[in-house]
Amino acid sequence: MRQILVIGSGKSTSYLIKYLLDHAATESLLITIADIHIENAERLINNHLNGNTIQLDIFNDASRYEIIKASDIVISMLPAHLHINIAKDCLKLNKNLVTASYVSPEMQALNEEVKAKGLIFMNEIGVDPGLDHMSAMKVLDDIREKGGEILSFESSTGGLIAPESDNNLWHYKFTWNPRNVVLAGQGGTAKYLKEGSYKYLPYNQLFKRAETLNIENHGRFEVYANRDSLKYQAAYKLENAKTLYRGTMRRAGFCQAWDVFVSLGMTDDSFTMDDSEHLSHRNFLNAFLPYHPSDSVESKLQKLLKIEYTDLIWKKLEALDLFNNNKYTKLEKATPAQILQNILMDSWSLSEQDKDMVVMYHKFGYKLSGKKHETTSTMVTIGTDSTYTAMAKTVGLPVAIATISILNKKITQPGVHIPITKEIYLPILTELETYGIIFNEKNRI
Amino acid sequence: MRQILVIGSGKSTSYLIKYLLDHAATESLLITIADIHIENAERLINNHLNGNTIQLDIFNDASRYEIIKASDIVISMLPAHLHINIAKDCLKLNKNLVTASYVSPEMQALNEEVKAKGLIFMNEIGVDPGLDHMSAMKVLDDIREKGGEILSFESSTGGLIAPESDNNLWHYKFTWNPRNVVLAGQGGTAKYLKEGSYKYLPYNQLFKRAETLNIENHGRFEVYANRDSLKYQAAYKLENAKTLYRGTMRRAGFCQAWDVFVSLGMTDDSFTMDDSEHLSHRNFLNAFLPYHPSDSVESKLQKLLKIEYTDLIWKKLEALDLFNNNKYTKLEKATPAQILQNILMDSWSLSEQDKDMVVMYHKFGYKLSGKKHETTSTMVTIGTDSTYTAMAKTVGLPVAIATISILNKKITQPGVHIPITKEIYLPILTELETYGIIFNEKNRI
Repeated sequence: MRQILVIGSGKSTSYLIKYLLDHAATESLLITIADIHIENAERLINNHLNGNTIQLDIFNDASRYEIIKASDIVISMLPAHLHINIAKDCLKLNKNLVTASYVSPEMQALNEEVKAKGLIFMNEIGVDPGLDHMSAMKVLDDIREKGGEILSFESSTGGLIAPESDNNLWHYKFTWNPRNVVLAGQGGTAKYLKEGSYKYLPYNQLFKRAETLNIENHGRFEVYANRDSLKYQAAYKLENAKTLYRGTMRRAGFCQAWDVFVSLGMTDDSFTMDDSEHLSHRNFLNAFLPYHPSDSVESKLQKLLKIEYTDLIWKKLEALDLFNNNKYTKLEKATPAQILQNILMDSWSLSEQDKDMVVMYHKFGYKLSGKKHETTSTMVTIGTDSTYTAMAKTVGLPVAIATISILNKKITQPGVHIPITKEIYLPILTELETYGIIFNEKNRI
Repeated sequence: MRQILVIGSGKSTSYLIKYLLDHAATESLLITIADIHIENAERLINNHLNGNTIQLDIFNDASRYEIIKASDIVISMLPAHLHINIAKDCLKLNKNLVTASYVSPEMQALNEEVKAKGLIFMNEIGVDPGLDHMSAMKVLDDIREKGGEILSFESSTGGLIAPESDNNLWHYKFTWNPRNVVLAGQGGTAKYLKEGSYKYLPYNQLFKRAETLNIENHGRFEVYANRDSLKYQAAYKLENAKTLYRGTMRRAGFCQAWDVFVSLGMTDDSFTMDDSEHLSHRNFLNAFLPYHPSDSVESKLQKLLKIEYTDLIWKKLEALDLFNNNKYTKLEKATPAQILQNILMDSWSLSEQDKDMVVMYHKFGYKLSGKKHETTSTMVTIGTDSTYTAMAKTVGLPVAIATISILNKKITQPGVHIPITKEIYLPILTELETYGIIFNEKNRI
């Protein structure tokens, strides 16, 4: 039996654990799930004979080390900043490691040692990052093998609500970490390359300048730019491309309405508001509006941002009960972002049977035999319910498949990796198709 | 003879040094000016018998210590973050200290030791901070002595160009550190109190929501909010006031035009632009505009920010030569803020004979004998030329007068201070009037 250790059992682990348990018999696997709270892990294991849980305080160095020592391979599903100590233990104990997170500089710094020991630390193998790398590299490699020259690459991903569960005006619910959604775009000026020119978008323009995207059979979306669209320029070998753009998708109309919060400063997480526990929703909003001796909150908001009562954007704000003077978040010493998140969670939380949707869309422009071509690659995955979400599926299945591939020595190249080589991505993408995660590629000249 | 050591001889020291030299004979003063570059100091001393210069590397602990040891009192005119080592030397060597800078937490932490040794460390005794404290406290104390109850305090200050030298459409020139002007407002969300409600203004709204201010005989100004209007609430004993607002003044029309730069992200100092040394002014601007296959830079800017060719704001942008494709700042690895500053310096630098202007305006609302009253206090000072500026005058004279007062034991209370007690501010304000720095107070019911 091979011992797989999964550290962390949060929302995005349901499909990962299901896959591992489903393959436990055929692949001879024992799966241990370590977490500080084991209730969710126990629910997911559901008394499966090859699964067990163990309580672990990740900050307890000795217990963490012992648990890792007892395993054959480690999957860390913790928040990204908590991987590094696990990685260092794995290095000491000669264990392979899989994460769905961005490679941090600290993780990258381990590369030489990892290589020297013949180990594999596979990162960025969830959905975004993960599926984006694999599906994009597949098309890019195909084009290059045919002799094509890549001119442009635009890519966007969205964690959204499925049409069948879409019952609010924003066409949005929290299908992953709400805090990250509220703070999205605040990491610094977004940068991308368009037709040979670098473009820079400050936070205050990010949602104002979202771009419309139509996806056949799936309707209209909007895309706002990620912080650094040039991040994978070298990894994807796109040094000669004239356009590089990576973005995040929302349903059409979301960004303009969200920009109300950005413009007013309600997504700010850098200071706590005075007397925050006593602010009604209405007073919270009013704190970001100018003083006026007689104008109402509604009237001031309309004048300041030039919104009409009849605009859909206005209906969206009303739908959040933002003007209610009798509702309170009651949060003490809270930042605007924390209060806003709390207000949104009342309207945007998934109910038990809600289905989410993950959408990924790439557009490649290239020149082949003197002609300009365009290829699009689209993936839409719908979740089953609020536990077995599309998000958990698209994050968890690539992690699970990569883990088994490493155990079975199908992935062998040692080092700190992301899944951008054909040997890695092709078998994974092929297997994912059997689970309904399918990239639909279309070409036109 | 009493030995005064002035450390630093930058732009704001001309009047300070002139005052000290003019009083050298009557007050028996020897003035030593220490700086790493002594050319400006020598020019200002102009062979006066009681003045001399000494080259000092402020980071050389031994020489700094020896120079301070030889003096009777120290004035530090260095940038604020460089005061603390001087302050610690002064503490060791039992020397009094005067600065025009905000009291840093490190400076405040010395208070008990300074008191114990019977020393005086007088800070925030320039113009803003400085004159603002003194002139505001004078009115506040007057109102309270009459039995009035303060309801509101609004205060703003501007370092501007004098009307006789105002020859550009922005009605603005750099009369102090250009970098600080470009970065103004970026320290975080501005906060103030208005009629009992806290109000928060994010950077993207700061210049959009500037308020108009008319000052009799001086025309129309605009005021944008300082970061923390509540900073001196306790020091000024304004805990019961319903309105507290501190702002920075510009000439009418400036803020709306400046907001173009803020909106587009051109004041950002947090990242360097790719290939910055080869960006023409036009391409610099274009980097913050959306891509369009055929629209001109002008057309994109107009559409994005809804500006008309006929708007004054458009003329202001043109006046900066911002659309010129043949002008380059040529700065390598430059941030947007650095490039913008460079472009502005071409248009906004003071010429030798240009006169600047410092404006300060306070408005106090109070209740006395059941009636509501309003008092305004206005100060306008015009400079002589680009050396003897109003800025140098309003910063330097309070520093100089306070220094002599400490030497002459007219200010005696030991500790780390700011000038908010009558014993300190009243003699200084009275003497400043003889130099034309006059606060014009008006009351109305």
